[in-house]
Amino acid sequence: MKRLPAYINDLEAWKASFHFFQPVKVRFSETDAFGHVNNTKVFVYFEEGRIALFEKIGIMKEWAARDSDAMIVTADLHCDYIRQITFGEALQVGVKVEKLGHSSMELHYLVVNEQEEICLTGRGTMVQVNKKTERSLPWNEKMKALFQPYLT
Amino acid sequence: MKRLPAYINDLEAWKASFHFFQPVKVRFSETDAFGHVNNTKVFVYFEEGRIALFEKIGIMKEWAARDSDAMIVTADLHCDYIRQITFGEALQVGVKVEKLGHSSMELHYLVVNEQEEICLTGRGTMVQVNKKTERSLPWNEKMKALFQPYLT
Amino acid sequence: MKRLPAYINDLEAWKASFHFFQPVKVRFSETDAFGHVNNTKVFVYFEEGRIALFEKIGIMKEWAARDSDAMIVTADLHCDYIRQITFGEALQVGVKVEKLGHSSMELHYLVVNEQEEICLTGRGTMVQVNKKTERSLPWNEKMKALFQPYLT
Amino acid sequence: MKRLPAYINDLEAWKASFHFFQPVKVRFSETDAFGHVNNTKVFVYFEEGRIALFEKIGIMKEWAARDSDAMIVTADLHCDYIRQITFGEALQVGVKVEKLGHSSMELHYLVVNEQEEICLTGRGTMVQVNKKTERSLPWNEKMKALFQPYLT
Repeated sequence: MKRLPAYINDLEAWKASFHFFQPVKVRFSETDAFGHVNNTKVFVYFEEGRIALFEKIGIMKEWAARDSDAMIVTADLHCDYIRQITFGEALQVGVKVEKLGHSSMELHYLVVNEQEEICLTGRGTMVQVNKKTERSLPWNEKMKALFQPYLT
Repeated sequence: MKRLPAYINDLEAWKASFHFFQPVKVRFSETDAFGHVNNTKVFVYFEEGRIALFEKIGIMKEWAARDSDAMIVTADLHCDYIRQITFGEALQVGVKVEKLGHSSMELHYLVVNEQEEICLTGRGTMVQVNKKTERSLPWNEKMKALFQPYLT
Repeated sequence: MKRLPAYINDLEAWKASFHFFQPVKVRFSETDAFGHVNNTKVFVYFEEGRIALFEKIGIMKEWAARDSDAMIVTADLHCDYIRQITFGEALQVGVKVEKLGHSSMELHYLVVNEQEEICLTGRGTMVQVNKKTERSLPWNEKMKALFQPYLT
Repeated sequence: MKRLPAYINDLEAWKASFHFFQPVKVRFSETDAFGHVNNTKVFVYFEEGRIALFEKIGIMKEWAARDSDAMIVTADLHCDYIRQITFGEALQVGVKVEKLGHSSMELHYLVVNEQEEICLTGRGTMVQVNKKTERSLPWNEKMKALFQPYLT
């Protein structure tokens, strides 16, 4: 990495702060005619990692339930493409909760290959909203407690 | 085509029976590392053509509405890959209603390129179901009347 | 299943003939606004299962290599949708080599959920072709030997 | 928009600086179980708009050609999600070349719906690289001239 993205101060410290990793195997249908993973597919890896973390935290079922009032939406998303990814690679998608706001959270992403080389870094903000009004919905105390152990 | 698929009796007559075509431009993200459109993406073209037909018939809005009781699901789907498709090709996706059942319909698909060469042929059955019970929901008279002009 | 697809004679015997299964977890981005896995995404599961089998057989690397003369393309593909699939389900994608032709092979697919309920069944033909001429390329003796243990 | 993203100084001036728009119709398979376009799919719209611009400029064919030495890869990509997008919406994907570097370019994106409401804004860096070495490849004079009329 020639130049660090704005959301990383110290690369080694940043890498060391990831404690949750979701394994993802690159599918052939995710490559494109240039022979690598298409730029649009990496956000599927981010989503896969993020949701795996939400499941581990125990918060995903509530959002995915049909009769739930709340859902989680993406406010912004950023990816830095460090190294080309090819078909068949076994990736580890690291996700961490960087900050917990009133009804939002900032997540960081780190995707490494089997040689532990950084392929992707990223960040993004998720917001909890009311399914009907689509207005932001503050975290309740139970949710805050669930996230606490995963905050860096 | 060396051998005709089972759902085509006479290729020229079959081709001539398509009257609805939806233009679709091939996206780069739909190609794979073999340099052509990935086999899984052609069903997106079928869906795009099918839904465009449903919209023209005036039946799609009802299914897509959040408070609708009915939705339309895929019962089976078949594709014959006749000619490789590459990035940037301007396709025409032909769709026709082959048969109207009690709560189902059989659709046929024909995808041609700008040189009017056949790239894909296909068929599939769609079923109208109740959103909650997920049981089949018979066509009402209004719907049958809407489909009538599109039956071959 | 009310009526068996044409490629299944005896359902129990057919199910019992699958010996290779690839686990696949359903991603949120694979659902659609009807709340289930979108019909177009199941072919990604078929591809995932098929390629995992090719990898186990030891034949995929050769096709995926940039300097290889051969690649494998889809000639036809069929899916029967038996049961709706929802986000988060842990699927098993069964794949078997039904028949080995001169330069082609017929594959069968069986997708079950954690309760071992059948969600999808399918079949399709793959053809080995020359990357440059795109004409069919017969299996060599080494390849035939590799496939032998996986033929039903 | 409560707060402007860092890459926008004056929203009205920024909006007025887009002169190239690519129409994109939202597909049903791009929605997810929350009922809106899935967060990962918006980057397909960005790619569609970007490539349409490259085609208009006359530079895409060269990159997509099998025997070309050069290809274009994504260095980073950012999206701000302003307004939920639903099935069937007819979007306009605006793309502009914000800056032309030595071998890179910064692109800005603006996606509006039929009511000209902003749905998405974004930015990203593309780099021209050598297909074999994957090292950056400086723009030649012909390319610079092609881009000139599209620089803001």
